[in-house]
Amino acid sequence: MKHFLNTQDWSRPELDALLTQAALFKRNKLGGELRGRSIALVFFNPSLRTRTSFELGAFQLGGHAVVLQPGKDAWPIEFDLGTVMDGDTEEHIAEVARVLSRYVDLIGVRAFPKFIDWSLDRQDRVLQGFAKHATVPVINMETITHPCQELAHVLALQEHFGATDLRGKKYVLTWTYHPKALNTAVANSALTIATRMGMDVTLLCPTPEYVLDERYMGWAEQNVAESGGSLKVSHDIDSAYAGADVVYAKSWGALPYFGNWGPEKPIRDGFRHFIVDERKMALTNNGVFSHCLPLRRNVKATDAVMDSPNCIAIEEAENRLHVQKAVMAALAAQAS
Amino acid sequence: MKHFLNTQDWSRPELDALLTQAALFKRNKLGGELRGRSIALVFFNPSLRTRTSFELGAFQLGGHAVVLQPGKDAWPIEFDLGTVMDGDTEEHIAEVARVLSRYVDLIGVRAFPKFIDWSLDRQDRVLQGFAKHATVPVINMETITHPCQELAHVLALQEHFGATDLRGKKYVLTWTYHPKALNTAVANSALTIATRMGMDVTLLCPTPEYVLDERYMGWAEQNVAESGGSLKVSHDIDSAYAGADVVYAKSWGALPYFGNWGPEKPIRDGFRHFIVDERKMALTNNGVFSHCLPLRRNVKATDAVMDSPNCIAIEEAENRLHVQKAVMAALAAQAS
Amino acid sequence: MKHFLNTQDWSRPELDALLTQAALFKRNKLGGELRGRSIALVFFNPSLRTRTSFELGAFQLGGHAVVLQPGKDAWPIEFDLGTVMDGDTEEHIAEVARVLSRYVDLIGVRAFPKFIDWSLDRQDRVLQGFAKHATVPVINMETITHPCQELAHVLALQEHFGATDLRGKKYVLTWTYHPKALNTAVANSALTIATRMGMDVTLLCPTPEYVLDERYMGWAEQNVAESGGSLKVSHDIDSAYAGADVVYAKSWGALPYFGNWGPEKPIRDGFRHFIVDERKMALTNNGVFSHCLPLRRNVKATDAVMDSPNCIAIEEAENRLHVQKAVMAALAAQAS
Repeated sequence: MKHFLNTQDWSRPELDALLTQAALFKRNKLGGELRGRSIALVFFNPSLRTRTSFELGAFQLGGHAVVLQPGKDAWPIEFDLGTVMDGDTEEHIAEVARVLSRYVDLIGVRAFPKFIDWSLDRQDRVLQGFAKHATVPVINMETITHPCQELAHVLALQEHFGATDLRGKKYVLTWTYHPKALNTAVANSALTIATRMGMDVTLLCPTPEYVLDERYMGWAEQNVAESGGSLKVSHDIDSAYAGADVVYAKSWGALPYFGNWGPEKPIRDGFRHFIVDERKMALTNNGVFSHCLPLRRNVKATDAVMDSPNCIAIEEAENRLHVQKAVMAALAAQAS
Repeated sequence: MKHFLNTQDWSRPELDALLTQAALFKRNKLGGELRGRSIALVFFNPSLRTRTSFELGAFQLGGHAVVLQPGKDAWPIEFDLGTVMDGDTEEHIAEVARVLSRYVDLIGVRAFPKFIDWSLDRQDRVLQGFAKHATVPVINMETITHPCQELAHVLALQEHFGATDLRGKKYVLTWTYHPKALNTAVANSALTIATRMGMDVTLLCPTPEYVLDERYMGWAEQNVAESGGSLKVSHDIDSAYAGADVVYAKSWGALPYFGNWGPEKPIRDGFRHFIVDERKMALTNNGVFSHCLPLRRNVKATDAVMDSPNCIAIEEAENRLHVQKAVMAALAAQAS
Repeated sequence: MKHFLNTQDWSRPELDALLTQAALFKRNKLGGELRGRSIALVFFNPSLRTRTSFELGAFQLGGHAVVLQPGKDAWPIEFDLGTVMDGDTEEHIAEVARVLSRYVDLIGVRAFPKFIDWSLDRQDRVLQGFAKHATVPVINMETITHPCQELAHVLALQEHFGATDLRGKKYVLTWTYHPKALNTAVANSALTIATRMGMDVTLLCPTPEYVLDERYMGWAEQNVAESGGSLKVSHDIDSAYAGADVVYAKSWGALPYFGNWGPEKPIRDGFRHFIVDERKMALTNNGVFSHCLPLRRNVKATDAVMDSPNCIAIEEAENRLHVQKAVMAALAAQAS
């Protein structure tokens, strides 16, 4: 039984099939692929787009989504094995995942890092716990990666360029400023999928401390070796933007300061100028701009960039609906 | 593209058509007017009736409602233009409204005033922000007016009197006591729709300080000029109730004390006797009583009034379902 | 009009019909019994299984569930009659129940005790308030009893033993340890339904102070008188487990300490050895183990017991879906 935990677990033909199906759903939104079926959307963190798009996607295919928020309107959950559960948690993932699997056909999980210890967070234990104990397919709705966003992003790029083959495009994943240290999930994902699609990828970030976790750097290297694209890391804004076909922005916290964010704050505050603005975009090859949203205007990107015709963030957000329907339909088909 | 922000934006024939359709939905609750369609219900404030009735209304017409609570289980939203978003808000209304518009066919918004500065609150910025940026119709689920309640109220009166023409009825909108300074929305709305329907309207309130905002007083004057009804303000309970056909009660805070409620509290506490009770109702022309709910019993109205056969508050509450289905169906029809 | 407040209000043939229908729904999950119908799920306390299973059950039968959480995303509700509502509550149950009855076809209510005064909590006022004022059938989703869990439990036992007649089985309801004083609802319910089914029931608990409320002890005595089973109370672990066919575990607070839990804590902490473990299960007649979930592993029962093939807790949890569909279908049928 196949889960959708990371795109890296899926072959290129499988990913391409998902994207093709998503484009079809974009043209014909209603279908019967989930008739009478259901998905549990388990949110350990808040959501606007993800929740709405999954809930509507299930509805449009004849199914139903149940939204659960453990620790908020459901019980707090234990993820460790063998624990004597005399603390705060009231129920073990073994029971939660197995019981949910009796009720629903699919389980989506959103669980951000706890931002205390990256060596723990990088194990992705909540998602892996569900995948281990559930007897139905599990979908990553963003943990330390965000594979649904990856597909939505690629579909938006394919639409923008009018081509499914993105090889040869210069793709810049740029760190941008945010007052808080954020999750690396979307950055890890952008790096993963951009290299997977064979683009010439530059990871632009303020210093070597902002380079991503070695797992995702490793996936990216493996991907370019297989796809024929390229990968480089840059700390120079102007050369990175020069000639870019795609600028994808995201803010994230520097991993060496994980859980001890105090000293990182003044460092990060020194890089406010990484904001995506018109001057930088003018250096590109009439480049397209996107971001996963939510986005703080005039902090991560300027109003001018967000409101320019080259911004496809809204299109990418819309595509979440379509790609997730493709993922749900594919996973449900194997289960039936 | 037409929104449903205020009844005042809709012509009388349009409002009458909504009421006719609502009466039809009351007799035949299931339909296909929203088949495969969806509405986002965006709640910045809690709700019982509104949420339930919109959610069920969408379901009964073949559609689906997604309930979102920004700042609670979704991101806090920025409504100002041009802001450097380095505060608490994580996303701009421009993105929220445009992305939601890609997912759903209709957007409902509930956003009460913040009760700090009436000059700000009276701009109705949240609702107006959605209406400006959304590319699908927006429905007011109560902000500084409550137009869905207006229609439900009128339908209940039409049912009670067995006539769609309410002209000639004496209508008293009475302020009533509540320990807290409440929103003027329903009072603004009652004044607006009662005058629109051509009734002879008395606004009964403790002192001139409790008169409503000039915008709604102005709408009421304009309405009676067009409809042939009448409007007066009274601070005398007995003469206001005398011969009334309709008593509609609501509590609200006096606008001159907006945001500085301390001095208003002892004034308000001096007017507990505005409670709707049997003695006052006995002065009426066997008048019908209603209230928008929720209602504090024996504070706003006595048990005897609430439990009398002349109380149509439950009927009015039920009608929320039917009128909102009419509104959703009308707005969705124009969008298709 | 029949509610589903307690199994004790339903005849054995009626309960048997619900169980038969539930078994049918388990084989064929989709149906039209609730087509176009709706249920309001009113949660005063959090839920995982109950909410998911009711919401999906309604969907699978063509209906729709609206989830409401009063005091959280809806108004706090008053349950006393005649109150001058100048405190925290904004709306009376009379209005809430009557308005909801206009919108939906069924109302489910979860309202745990407040754990301050058992003489108040044992009146089950929230549930009784809904039942009194609603004009549609009301379902107990766990208050001071948990009748839906009862049916799910019995169905799981019937499946395990391959027989609908459970007479002659030795059934042990054992108190087990939990760091907090919990609700007696599931214990009350297990005692009620096990005696109703005519089993030979032992209530195993640490001391006489942990015996259940006289109402439920009385129901159990009445049931065995009618059904031919038996009832005894034991404080001796080994003799209670000896030869048992069924071990059902639950933790609960001792009623004499209700609302004054401080002195009960050290007493309770002295009974950690009531945990269900392999040694105790080895004393049984290859007994089946179950629990209503959520369960703290290695506190209430060991990993070995939970993961053994004789544990049917997951099956029982699944059955919640099926029995609740049977209850909803039966109640909706009488209403139509």
